Amino acid sequence: MLYHLFDHLQQTTDIPGVGLFQYISFRAAAAALLSLLVSIGIGRRIIEWLQLKQVGEVVRDLGLEGQMQKQGTPTMGGIIILSAILVPTLLLADLTNVYIQCMLLVTVLLGGIGFIDDYIKVFKKNKEGLAGRFKVIGQVGASLLVATMLFWNPQVRVKELTPVNSADAIAQQLEDTDGDGWVRIERRSQKTTIPFVKDNEFNYAWLTDWATDSPWMRFAVFALVVTFIVTAVSNGANLTDGMDGLATGTSAIIGLTLAILAYVSGNAVFSDYLNVLFIPDSGELVVFISAFVGACIGFLWYNAFPAQVFMGDTGSLALGGIIATFAIAIRKELLIPVLCGIFLIENLSVVLQVAWFRHTKRKEGEGRRIFRMAPLHHHYQKGGLPESKITARFWIVGILLAVITIVTLKVR
Amino acid sequence: MLYHLFDHLQQTTDIPGVGLFQYISFRAAAAALLSLLVSIGIGRRIIEWLQLKQVGEVVRDLGLEGQMQKQGTPTMGGIIILSAILVPTLLLADLTNVYIQCMLLVTVLLGGIGFIDDYIKVFKKNKEGLAGRFKVIGQVGASLLVATMLFWNPQVRVKELTPVNSADAIAQQLEDTDGDGWVRIERRSQKTTIPFVKDNEFNYAWLTDWATDSPWMRFAVFALVVTFIVTAVSNGANLTDGMDGLATGTSAIIGLTLAILAYVSGNAVFSDYLNVLFIPDSGELVVFISAFVGACIGFLWYNAFPAQVFMGDTGSLALGGIIATFAIAIRKELLIPVLCGIFLIENLSVVLQVAWFRHTKRKEGEGRRIFRMAPLHHHYQKGGLPESKITARFWIVGILLAVITIVTLKVR
Repeated sequence: MLYHLFDHLQQTTDIPGVGLFQYISFRAAAAALLSLLVSIGIGRRIIEWLQLKQVGEVVRDLGLEGQMQKQGTPTMGGIIILSAILVPTLLLADLTNVYIQCMLLVTVLLGGIGFIDDYIKVFKKNKEGLAGRFKVIGQVGASLLVATMLFWNPQVRVKELTPVNSADAIAQQLEDTDGDGWVRIERRSQKTTIPFVKDNEFNYAWLTDWATDSPWMRFAVFALVVTFIVTAVSNGANLTDGMDGLATGTSAIIGLTLAILAYVSGNAVFSDYLNVLFIPDSGELVVFISAFVGACIGFLWYNAFPAQVFMGDTGSLALGGIIATFAIAIRKELLIPVLCGIFLIENLSVVLQVAWFRHTKRKEGEGRRIFRMAPLHHHYQKGGLPESKITARFWIVGILLAVITIVTLKVR
Repeated sequence: MLYHLFDHLQQTTDIPGVGLFQYISFRAAAAALLSLLVSIGIGRRIIEWLQLKQVGEVVRDLGLEGQMQKQGTPTMGGIIILSAILVPTLLLADLTNVYIQCMLLVTVLLGGIGFIDDYIKVFKKNKEGLAGRFKVIGQVGASLLVATMLFWNPQVRVKELTPVNSADAIAQQLEDTDGDGWVRIERRSQKTTIPFVKDNEFNYAWLTDWATDSPWMRFAVFALVVTFIVTAVSNGANLTDGMDGLATGTSAIIGLTLAILAYVSGNAVFSDYLNVLFIPDSGELVVFISAFVGACIGFLWYNAFPAQVFMGDTGSLALGGIIATFAIAIRKELLIPVLCGIFLIENLSVVLQVAWFRHTKRKEGEGRRIFRMAPLHHHYQKGGLPESKITARFWIVGILLAVITIVTLKVR
């Protein structure tokens, strides 16, 4: 809202400094600072309030060293993260931008589902939480809304070099200022980025165009993809959130990588120079993701080992949903298996563990395990590595994966 | 050296993929990956070898909780950091570049001084280490070499917009292709970046030009500045290195910020767009600093709480020297008080503590303290905060300062 105020002031007055708010880089840095200050500032009070209201989530006794010390640590700290994302975004981002609206929607919806789940667990003392059925309905519903916004809104488009003699260029009567036979054309498109392939491009339309040119068919495919990604990533973040600072730090690393990708994709000069798909208006997303990174890092102030608060589903479902939706919006969702590799292996470790246990039980009468315990981080903990060390090493692997993600964009 | 091989191959053959090595962004990412792998890969063996050779540095008994557990943890782990910086730089950077030569020099010299200091402490069982006098001579000598290279080498220059009718432009017969009355001119200059001031520019030559136009006078001033900064920052890093992962993580955060600043300063397109001083050939530094960041993060694999190894002076003097020299090379050294704020407050806490103790002792007969203990991180530890939490919070403040540093470039 400050953005709109300053935008108005800039057009109508000549107060110095007001013009700074035009720059995405300035608003992004301000959003990061503000979210850090908000999370650290309100954190202590929210934690005291949560402690008062709840005796702390009942921790499953997993027979892990130091684990029962966690008894009494309040959960639902995700409220701190959500506030630290929403306050700077509402103040500093352009709220008429469809991408910002989309991210706000996901934050509120998935944060809301997580909150209800936590609320039932903590206050109703019902350890199951929200019935799985409702959780899935919520996640799918949010995904469909995202898919709808990103598929049908005319603001969502890409800008590409196109030969002057193409039908589009002739229809739009664009002038070839360089005289090199190419012009930049804005168009709606289902193109996305895929590594290791010529031009790094993939178009979802290719999946349906051989059969039909109905946009509804295209939308159906896109909606399926969005639903799968949002559900998978938010589930992954949820599983990763089982050790002090683990999901928080991993999300901050992923967020920072997404910030770089979004800044480049949304800037005409940089995307051209680095040969990345240019997505007009998406630069505004950098303001949002900076608040996201700041919120995660600020939350670590209290969540780092030994944690004074846990994020709960309120935090983890929202973190995963935000990361997934953001990657889809800047058309980098096919990089998620690498970038969110920590979430992926945590997810896989559970799936493999359960599958192998069931398989051996059926085959040999006795269920056997691949890992000492799943998700993966508990495997190392059972192996005797201190919790803080496991978290640090998972973060380092996360950083390694982030660097690899950025490298893939160059290798084509 | 790989860089030179591929550069040669690219000019003489047409093997695909070789061209990738032209891109600084690609080599930087590769350097980060390689240094991560080197430090994690060789780390375990070096730690085992250090453990075998030394019974572990004799830890001062400060009466801190859990402190005596550190007895037996080997020091001199800085060797891991130095290797992980040098290997990728030697392989992937352009070794004919003066900035790269300068950074290699500082790394080896300050690493060497630290190594001798550690060696005397650990193997000669002499707790004083290298006599203070020799340590200062080494630091000053390294600083003077850096100042000499950066002052006299003709490769060190900036490129600026200059009116077409200036004497320089007329002498160089540059053509005004835009027809806007401005051309870009490369010139040797002592300009640096200063925040909050018009155009963010300060020229060291201003300090001497009112008196003399002797280049020797200018050099003397520059050499003084360089010596002060290098000594102060390496001393700060040294003091900060008193808690598991503290100096390592803080340096990684500073390094990442410097990487962003160097990438922008060394790129004609980006520096122009973001209105930052353009320093030709300095982009190569991004390869070096990426290796630096990777080395720090890789070292955290073993150095994170609870640490299996300490970096010792071998690491901390080099880290500080590298950060200082790098900031000077990309002409951002006046941002150091903010960017390296953690080093600064650790330094200040010691100075204030000692000064106040002496002052009160002289005045009141009894020495009194400002902090429970200096450097500052021990103050919080004595206050009962767990070590891992203090480290995390110092990192977070480091991130906050990094964001502020970047913001200052926009506010002018």
